Amino acid sequence: MVRVGIVGATGYTAEESLKILLRHNQAEVTTLTALPDECDHIAKIFPAFEGRLDIEVEPLDVERLAEQADVALGCLPHKVAMSFVPRLLDAGIKVIDFSADYRLDDVKVYEQYYEVTHEDAGRLGGVPYGLPELFREEIRGASLVANPGCFPTGTTLALAPLLCEKLIRPSGIVANAVTGVSGAGRKAALKFHYPEMDQNMFAYGIGTHRHGPEIEQICGKVLGEQVQVLFQPHVAALSRGILTSVYADPVRKVTAGQLRELFEQTYQAEPFVRVLDAPPTLRSIIHSNYCDVYPTVVKDKIVVFSAIDNLVKGAAGQAIQNMNLICGFDELEGLL
Amino acid sequence: MVRVGIVGATGYTAEESLKILLRHNQAEVTTLTALPDECDHIAKIFPAFEGRLDIEVEPLDVERLAEQADVALGCLPHKVAMSFVPRLLDAGIKVIDFSADYRLDDVKVYEQYYEVTHEDAGRLGGVPYGLPELFREEIRGASLVANPGCFPTGTTLALAPLLCEKLIRPSGIVANAVTGVSGAGRKAALKFHYPEMDQNMFAYGIGTHRHGPEIEQICGKVLGEQVQVLFQPHVAALSRGILTSVYADPVRKVTAGQLRELFEQTYQAEPFVRVLDAPPTLRSIIHSNYCDVYPTVVKDKIVVFSAIDNLVKGAAGQAIQNMNLICGFDELEGLL
Amino acid sequence: MVRVGIVGATGYTAEESLKILLRHNQAEVTTLTALPDECDHIAKIFPAFEGRLDIEVEPLDVERLAEQADVALGCLPHKVAMSFVPRLLDAGIKVIDFSADYRLDDVKVYEQYYEVTHEDAGRLGGVPYGLPELFREEIRGASLVANPGCFPTGTTLALAPLLCEKLIRPSGIVANAVTGVSGAGRKAALKFHYPEMDQNMFAYGIGTHRHGPEIEQICGKVLGEQVQVLFQPHVAALSRGILTSVYADPVRKVTAGQLRELFEQTYQAEPFVRVLDAPPTLRSIIHSNYCDVYPTVVKDKIVVFSAIDNLVKGAAGQAIQNMNLICGFDELEGLL
Amino acid sequence: MVRVGIVGATGYTAEESLKILLRHNQAEVTTLTALPDECDHIAKIFPAFEGRLDIEVEPLDVERLAEQADVALGCLPHKVAMSFVPRLLDAGIKVIDFSADYRLDDVKVYEQYYEVTHEDAGRLGGVPYGLPELFREEIRGASLVANPGCFPTGTTLALAPLLCEKLIRPSGIVANAVTGVSGAGRKAALKFHYPEMDQNMFAYGIGTHRHGPEIEQICGKVLGEQVQVLFQPHVAALSRGILTSVYADPVRKVTAGQLRELFEQTYQAEPFVRVLDAPPTLRSIIHSNYCDVYPTVVKDKIVVFSAIDNLVKGAAGQAIQNMNLICGFDELEGLL
Repeated sequence: MVRVGIVGATGYTAEESLKILLRHNQAEVTTLTALPDECDHIAKIFPAFEGRLDIEVEPLDVERLAEQADVALGCLPHKVAMSFVPRLLDAGIKVIDFSADYRLDDVKVYEQYYEVTHEDAGRLGGVPYGLPELFREEIRGASLVANPGCFPTGTTLALAPLLCEKLIRPSGIVANAVTGVSGAGRKAALKFHYPEMDQNMFAYGIGTHRHGPEIEQICGKVLGEQVQVLFQPHVAALSRGILTSVYADPVRKVTAGQLRELFEQTYQAEPFVRVLDAPPTLRSIIHSNYCDVYPTVVKDKIVVFSAIDNLVKGAAGQAIQNMNLICGFDELEGLL
Repeated sequence: MVRVGIVGATGYTAEESLKILLRHNQAEVTTLTALPDECDHIAKIFPAFEGRLDIEVEPLDVERLAEQADVALGCLPHKVAMSFVPRLLDAGIKVIDFSADYRLDDVKVYEQYYEVTHEDAGRLGGVPYGLPELFREEIRGASLVANPGCFPTGTTLALAPLLCEKLIRPSGIVANAVTGVSGAGRKAALKFHYPEMDQNMFAYGIGTHRHGPEIEQICGKVLGEQVQVLFQPHVAALSRGILTSVYADPVRKVTAGQLRELFEQTYQAEPFVRVLDAPPTLRSIIHSNYCDVYPTVVKDKIVVFSAIDNLVKGAAGQAIQNMNLICGFDELEGLL
Repeated sequence: MVRVGIVGATGYTAEESLKILLRHNQAEVTTLTALPDECDHIAKIFPAFEGRLDIEVEPLDVERLAEQADVALGCLPHKVAMSFVPRLLDAGIKVIDFSADYRLDDVKVYEQYYEVTHEDAGRLGGVPYGLPELFREEIRGASLVANPGCFPTGTTLALAPLLCEKLIRPSGIVANAVTGVSGAGRKAALKFHYPEMDQNMFAYGIGTHRHGPEIEQICGKVLGEQVQVLFQPHVAALSRGILTSVYADPVRKVTAGQLRELFEQTYQAEPFVRVLDAPPTLRSIIHSNYCDVYPTVVKDKIVVFSAIDNLVKGAAGQAIQNMNLICGFDELEGLL
Repeated sequence: MVRVGIVGATGYTAEESLKILLRHNQAEVTTLTALPDECDHIAKIFPAFEGRLDIEVEPLDVERLAEQADVALGCLPHKVAMSFVPRLLDAGIKVIDFSADYRLDDVKVYEQYYEVTHEDAGRLGGVPYGLPELFREEIRGASLVANPGCFPTGTTLALAPLLCEKLIRPSGIVANAVTGVSGAGRKAALKFHYPEMDQNMFAYGIGTHRHGPEIEQICGKVLGEQVQVLFQPHVAALSRGILTSVYADPVRKVTAGQLRELFEQTYQAEPFVRVLDAPPTLRSIIHSNYCDVYPTVVKDKIVVFSAIDNLVKGAAGQAIQNMNLICGFDELEGLL
C-alpha cells in the first residue's frame, strides 16, 4: 500500500486523481495541500467526495508530507512546481509532476515559452517524460516523472507509429486539436463563463501554445531528428475530452490497410491505446484512460484521429499509470 | 425617431437590448456608458456587433446623456440604479430601469431584501411596474418605469388570470422555477465556470430570493389582498430561458377546459402572451418576447406552466415594449 | 463469484450496469441478450467497451442463460419483462427486473397506467420493491426484485423520513422533478434530437406519468395510510441526473434544524444517502450511486431537495446494490 | 412585395428561412409545402411560430404554387430537388435551391458523389452558384440559383483571397471543419440522440464528404486552375455554427499583416464578411448572416479561420441574400 499526497488539491486534475485513487487497491490518499486561503475540508471543495474522503486540505509542509506520503502528485501550475519539487525529492518523496516544468529538455525553450527563469534547470534532460507507451522503462526506475501535457499525449500517440517507421515527412505536419473547457483549469474567467462558452468554439494560442515545443521535442526523440508540427488548439463547448486530427505527408506510398496494421502492431501490447476501425468519438473515451486512434489515407495525405480524456489519459489517469510503474504495481490498477 | 442611451452597457441585458434596438425602426442608439475601467468600443465588448454598431462605451456623464438621448435603458445592478436614476429624470430623460430599485412599493421590504438604505425612497409606490399585460395604462404616461424581474414576469403571468378570477387560495401557492445561467449576469464566478455548470442543476435562494417579495406584491395588487407564494428558483445548464411550474389550490371546482378558456379570454388581446394547448418549451420562446402559458388541473390542484426568455420578455424585450408604450410607438415594434 | 447475464443489453441501463460490473470484484458478466436484429458484438453497440468486454450479444435463450448465469438483470421495457421473468425464475435464475412490471402491488393500477393485461399478476404484491433504504430485509432473501423507477427513488427518499415521522399532511404534496434525457431511453425520437433538445426544457406526463402511482404506493406503505402526491416530471437539456423539489405541509411546527436531525438519524447507517447542509447539485452525484438530500422549511412548508443519477441510483447502481444484497456481498461492492 | 413559397417546410433550413422572412419588409410567405404525411399547421411543426404565422403546410401542387408565389425556396434534400425544380421554373417561378442538385457543373462528379442519375443534367454548368461574394453578377439575373453548401461557404470565403492572389500552392490544402448537429438535418437518428451526442465530437465523411468536390470546383473557378483541398468535417455537441481552420502553403513569403490587408481589401465592400484581428468565435456569428474570417501565418503555413452559422450564412440567410439580389432588393434586407 503506497501512501499518496496531492500537492495542489483544488483543481480538476486533483479531483480526477482522487476519483481514481479511491478505486485503487494499493494506494491510500493521506495528505492534500493547497494555498492557505483555499484550504478547507476536501468535501467542501468537491462535494462529490462527501462521505467518501475525510481529509482537511492544508498548506504544504514538506516535512509533514514526507512523513505521511511515499509519492506526491504535483498538481500545481507551471512555474510553481519547480519551487517545491526539489524539496520533495530531497525529502525522499517520489514525485509525478503534472506541470510543464520538467517536460522540456532545453532550458532555453522552456524559458522562451514560459517566460520565467528555470530554478531547477540542472534536472532538465534527466527527467523521464511520463508517456508509458514511449518511455516505459525510463519511468519504472524514476523518482521524478514529468507527466505529459494533454495535447502532446493525444498528438504524440497519433504520430509515433508514423515517425518510428519514418513514413512521413518530418515537416508540414498539422495537428488540429479541439479540447473541452476543463483543459483551461478550474478558475473562473469571463470567456469560460457558462453563457459565454455555451454553444461556442474558437481557436487560440495560434503559433504560441506551450504544448507546441513539447510535441516537437517528443516527436523528435521518436524520429531521431528534428520534427516540425503546426499544432493548433481550439476550445469548444465541451467539459472534457480532446479530439486531435493530424495531417501528414507520406514519404512513400501507403494504404489505409497498411497504416492500420502498423498502428495495431505498434500498440498491440499497450493496455490504454485502442486502434479503431472507425473514427474515435469523445463519448467512448470520456472518463477513461484510453487513447483511441484511427489512421487512414485521404488524398495523398495520412490522416490520424486520436481521442483522449484530457483529465484522465491527458493528466490524472496517466499520472496514476506512471505511479503504478514507479511502484511496481499492475499498470492498470485503478484505471479500469 | 427616439434617441436611446444605455447605462451599464457591458451586461447581457444591454447586449440583448442592443440586438433588439438594431431592428427597431423608430429608435437609434446614441450613447452607451459603463464603469470607467470597462469602457471600450462596443464591438470589443460584444464582437457580434462588429460592423453593426460603431459606438465607444464611455463613463456616464448625465449632462452628455441628456443632450444625446431621449430615453435611457438603465441596465445597472440593484442599489446602483437609485444613485443615477433621479439625476437622469431631473435632466429630462425618460428611464426604463432594469434594476429592482423602483419595483417594490414598500421601502421596508426593499431594505430588508436588498440590505441597503434606499436613497430615493420618495419615489417608491409611484413608479409603474413595467408589466404591460397588467399595468399598460400607468406605463404609457410614465417618465420612469420599473422593468420587472425575470422570475416575477413568468410567475405573475401564470398566476394573474387565477387571481383576477379569485379562483385560488391566496396562500400555499408554489412557484418552482428553473432559469438559464445568463440570469446570474455576465460576471465570472467559479460556480458558473463552464465545466462546473455543464450538466449541472441546483436550487438556490431558498426562502430568500429577492424576487419573492416582488411576486407577492404584484400578485397582491392583482387580487386586491395579500398573496403568499413560495417561490423557489433553480439554475440549470442552459444559457437562457425560464420555465416556471406553478401549483395552486382552487377554491372551487374547475376543469382544465374552463381554465384554458379563462386564460384565453384574459390574454386574447395580448400580443406577447400565448395560451397553448400543450406544455410550453423553452426552445419555442428563446430569443423571443413571448410568454407561453399552459394551465391545467392535476389531482385537485391547478397547475400552470409558463416559459419566457429571461433576457427578452424577462428583461430587454419587456423594456423595449415599455419604451414603445412610453413613446407612443406600436407596442410590437422591434420585437418580432 | 456470481455469473451475471443482462437481458436487453442495448439500452442505457444495460450500458451503465456493464460499467459497474466491470469494476465489481465478485461478479462476472457472462451473457448479454437483445432482440435478434439488434444483436452484435457489445463493443460495436457501445464502443467504450472496446478491449474491455468481449461478448457477442445474442437473442434470449432461457436455457442457455440458465446455464451461464446465476443472476439476470432484466433491462427490458415495461410489458416485455413479464413475458420472460417467469421463465427465468423457473429456470432457477435470480432476477433484478428494471421494468415496472413487478413494482405495483395492485394489478388494476398497473393495467390502468400501462394499458395492457398483466400476464403474471399472481406475483404482484409478493415481489420486494428494490429500494434498500426501505425494504432491505425483504430484498435479501428474494429471487425476484422489482428495481424502482428513477423518479420514485429520488422522490421517496426525500419523503420517507417525513412520512415515517407522520410530520406532513398525506395530501397536497408536490414533487417537481427534472430529469436528463437518458431517462427517455436510448431510442431516437425527434423531440430528443440534439438540436431540438439542446437549450430546451419542458414538462411532460402531466397527471399521467406512470411513476405517480408507484410513488404513492411506496409512500403509502411507509406511512401506513394512503398518500397523495402530485408528481410532475420535466425534462431538460441534461444527459443524466434527476433533481426533485418536494413541497409538503407540516402537521406540526418544525424547524429546519429539526428536519435535518430527523434526516440524519433516518439515513445515518445508509451508505448511499447523504444528508447535506446545502442544496444538492447534479454535478456531485452524477456517475455515482448516491442520493443527496437537503430538507428545510420555507414559508410554512417543508421543502426537500433530492438529487440522484437516474442511470445509477435510479437504475443500474441500485440494481447492483440489490444484487449485492441478494448474493450476500458487501452492499457497496462495485459501487464506489 | 414578393410572394415566397417554401418547398419542404419541415426542416431546419425552412424554419430559419421563415424566421428571416418574418422580418423581411418586402417579402410575404404565402405557401408552405411538405410530404403529405408531414403536413400540418406550421405552428404545430414549429411551435415558435404560434401566433406569428397562420399557414397550413400542404403537399406540393406546382400550379397552386405558381399562382401564389413569385419565388420558391427549395428546402428539399439532394436528389429530390431536381424532380420539381424544372416544373417550378417552367411555371415561371424563380427558385433558390438549397440542395446540391445544381451546384456541381460536372454531371459525372455529381453522379459519383450522389450515387444517382441526374434527371436535369442539361442545366448543370449554367446555374449560378449562390455565393454573392464571388458570383454576385451572375446571381442578379438568374431565375435559378444553386444555394451553396454550408461547409463550402465557410471554406471558400477563407480561401478565395489567397487563390485570387495566387498566394498558395493549389494542393496540399487542409480544411478542418467542425459543425453543429443541425447540419445533419431535422431527422431523428440514434447517433444524434441527445444523450449520445451531448459531450461528444467525432470526424465523419472521411475522404468522401459531398462538399469536398463542391469546394474544389469553386476554388478552381476562383484560381483558374485545378485546386486540391483535403476537406475534413467533424461534428461536435453544438446546435449550430461551423468553425473552419484552413491550412495552406504560401508560394512566396507573406506576413500576417500582409494577409490581413489582402483580406480587408478583398472583402471591404462585402456586407456579410468581417475580417477580424482575432480568431472568430461561433458565439459572435450564431443567428447571423456574417462570415467572420481571420488569416494569419504560423510556421511557414498560412492559416485562416472562418466562422459561419450553418443555418444562416450556410443556408437560409444566404438564400435570402440571393433572393434579395434576384428581386432587386437591398441585399441586406431582412438579414440584420
